[in-house]
Amino acid sequence: MGTPRSIDLLISARWIVPVEPDRVVLENHAVVIDDGAIVAVLPAADANSQFAPRERVDLHEHALIPGLVNAHTHNPMTLLRGLADDLPLMTWLQEHIWPVEAKVIGAEFVRDGVELAIAEMLRGGTTCCNENYFFPDAQAQAYKAHGFRAMVGLPIIEFPSAWAKDRDGYFERALAVHDAWRGDALIGTAFAPHAPYTVADESFERIRTLADQLDIPVHLHLMETAREVEDSRREHGLRPLQRLQKLGLVNDRLIAVHMTQVSDAEIAVCAEAGVSVAHCPESNLKLASGFCPAEKLRRAGVNLALGTDGCASNNDLDMFGELRTAALLAKGVANDAAAFDDAFALRAATLNGARAIGLGETIGSIELGKRADLVAVRMDEVETQPLYNVISHLAYAVSRRQVSDAWIDGQRKLANGALVDFDLAGVLDKARRWSERIAALD
Amino acid sequence: MGTPRSIDLLISARWIVPVEPDRVVLENHAVVIDDGAIVAVLPAADANSQFAPRERVDLHEHALIPGLVNAHTHNPMTLLRGLADDLPLMTWLQEHIWPVEAKVIGAEFVRDGVELAIAEMLRGGTTCCNENYFFPDAQAQAYKAHGFRAMVGLPIIEFPSAWAKDRDGYFERALAVHDAWRGDALIGTAFAPHAPYTVADESFERIRTLADQLDIPVHLHLMETAREVEDSRREHGLRPLQRLQKLGLVNDRLIAVHMTQVSDAEIAVCAEAGVSVAHCPESNLKLASGFCPAEKLRRAGVNLALGTDGCASNNDLDMFGELRTAALLAKGVANDAAAFDDAFALRAATLNGARAIGLGETIGSIELGKRADLVAVRMDEVETQPLYNVISHLAYAVSRRQVSDAWIDGQRKLANGALVDFDLAGVLDKARRWSERIAALD
Repeated sequence: MGTPRSIDLLISARWIVPVEPDRVVLENHAVVIDDGAIVAVLPAADANSQFAPRERVDLHEHALIPGLVNAHTHNPMTLLRGLADDLPLMTWLQEHIWPVEAKVIGAEFVRDGVELAIAEMLRGGTTCCNENYFFPDAQAQAYKAHGFRAMVGLPIIEFPSAWAKDRDGYFERALAVHDAWRGDALIGTAFAPHAPYTVADESFERIRTLADQLDIPVHLHLMETAREVEDSRREHGLRPLQRLQKLGLVNDRLIAVHMTQVSDAEIAVCAEAGVSVAHCPESNLKLASGFCPAEKLRRAGVNLALGTDGCASNNDLDMFGELRTAALLAKGVANDAAAFDDAFALRAATLNGARAIGLGETIGSIELGKRADLVAVRMDEVETQPLYNVISHLAYAVSRRQVSDAWIDGQRKLANGALVDFDLAGVLDKARRWSERIAALD
Repeated sequence: MGTPRSIDLLISARWIVPVEPDRVVLENHAVVIDDGAIVAVLPAADANSQFAPRERVDLHEHALIPGLVNAHTHNPMTLLRGLADDLPLMTWLQEHIWPVEAKVIGAEFVRDGVELAIAEMLRGGTTCCNENYFFPDAQAQAYKAHGFRAMVGLPIIEFPSAWAKDRDGYFERALAVHDAWRGDALIGTAFAPHAPYTVADESFERIRTLADQLDIPVHLHLMETAREVEDSRREHGLRPLQRLQKLGLVNDRLIAVHMTQVSDAEIAVCAEAGVSVAHCPESNLKLASGFCPAEKLRRAGVNLALGTDGCASNNDLDMFGELRTAALLAKGVANDAAAFDDAFALRAATLNGARAIGLGETIGSIELGKRADLVAVRMDEVETQPLYNVISHLAYAVSRRQVSDAWIDGQRKLANGALVDFDLAGVLDKARRWSERIAALD
């Protein structure tokens, strides 16, 4: 036996659920991490003889899983959590959300909202998000400052905003943000045209060309409601997906968010083209947008990821809650109790999210060579006892508050439930001050 | 000003949500409790001058609400949590649940399962449940021993079981349990005929007569699946509700559980007759039973309560999760974002549950003269910040793990998140031993 290899971190856990291979549960194994990467996954007993870690974490009663990936969110809106609920979509948007946003949006609002969201995400086991909001530069700075992995959206919309005045302005700022963060280890960029009904063909064409050149995803709200489909048929003579096909955007760069109205034929198109769907079941229910046929998408082989959507329409960033709702709702919609099983729910919330945003080779599973984005969940609490099946409990019984630890890129961000190097009191204080200002506006 | 009145307990809270009147939030108020009853609800400043409490609890960052009422559960099955998932209903029942139950059911299994369930319920803010399982005597003893409020079901089914051998045996044991607990302050009894498809007309007729004589509710799985309705039409020439109408059971004693197949005409019948519906949205989704038209029932004025169903088909006893799922799903099913609002979700999980089990004058709201079944929820955590609207957060953002305190009949059962006078280690140890035995059987 040779000298133990010196490495940064050795995490041993009662259970490891690597997600890939499917449905595997490793008992009393360890993950070996060096320089932020996973360099070995092996029985804990062997790990202790083969490696000399600078830091060691023993998780005797925990399941270690890949960090959850929130594939669609508007995190600055965390500052609007619960501002207005139980209203028809247009009343909610036009009379509450948009008027408030018009008065507060800016780099400061975005930064403070993202910081609050990071606290909530880490405490709930989310280590990466696909962000979609204005001021991606402020978002990127906030995520980077906290060592949080994020794909920030470069917004494109045909209306003026505090972020840009016109189409050229949006593209100019988009390219500037992309250039500023190109090659960063934690922050990526995607085009984020708002939706087919707010973006013109000419903008979509520019996006297609630029996305190919820059090799980045296109993150788009698509077929969220029946009305969107009707309006598109009336205006363009095409369903939204058909219009995007014509524009050359239906390909493996596309992250199609919502898709409650996708037809069987369109599901086949998406599977063939390699489109990813970011399914947001709780937002779809809360806004009564319709039921995404999640099980049909899964069966067709479409890469199905999960997102919380923004906190103003959910009202949390709880990916454990979301994957559970997704698994339950899919069975009801498919009229099949065997649909969208526990292991698939976990995969949708991890590896499929990573694949959707182009990080399928980087994160989303506990595999050799991937970056160490990891989350530990305590399984010895009342709510997950007795325990017959770890994956079942992760899907159907765990509360996000059982998340004890989180690492991003090998750096510990949550330790025994406490945020690491995070001024939580300061972040909460800023949130409170925003809410006082916003409550006075609404 | 006179001498302050000596009382047992004064709880002051940042917010009190009494549920009745509807949508009211009292800020910086106090609840005054003496001999287990609520004797005053008033501004905290006034309470301090008018009352001399033997115990005082200040909840500076909390919402105080009525304890949650779980209107349909099979708590002994908590020992089967996650034993088998993602299976078609009949495979799940016939190949997993029933064979295991046949080998373990008895007073010991029931007691140990109920004790585990009590720990989970209290930690999650539930202070009363409507129980439905075999060995109601063992259930009643366990609930009583822990000072937990429960309605225990007196099972009637046409099959022999460890509890009774035949129809006469079931009725004999039912009456014996009812007599033993008649007049108890915490434990009530209800008839619990299993379902229309497992109970004969003759048994239903005896139940009707006895329920009237004893003045107790009838707790029945009803129209859970489309197949149940089809089978009833074939066998009886009637839909299940029609058959029960003919038998005289459609009245204000009836707690109809599930009701996914209820028609518009039947909703009107239920409203007119004063039937309560125990809606179990997560179980209905997980078993793909169908979608209960919860918003239609609410609009028709049917008393709509909420239940988790058993842990084997949910897989938790989380009433905050259930009320949230109910509120979200109802909007999707009704295609109306304004349906089943936050305040109604909280009411369904408290006062409507109490009404369903005949305790509408006793618990379910924070009102003068009611028994003090109360729950405190910390609102200052990241997940409920910022805070614009307490009721919105209770419905859409709170995690059950934010429940800090619970009282039943004025007795503290949970203090700062810790169970009071509860041998948690012992209960978990017993659960672990059952799971080892059961895993070997399955």
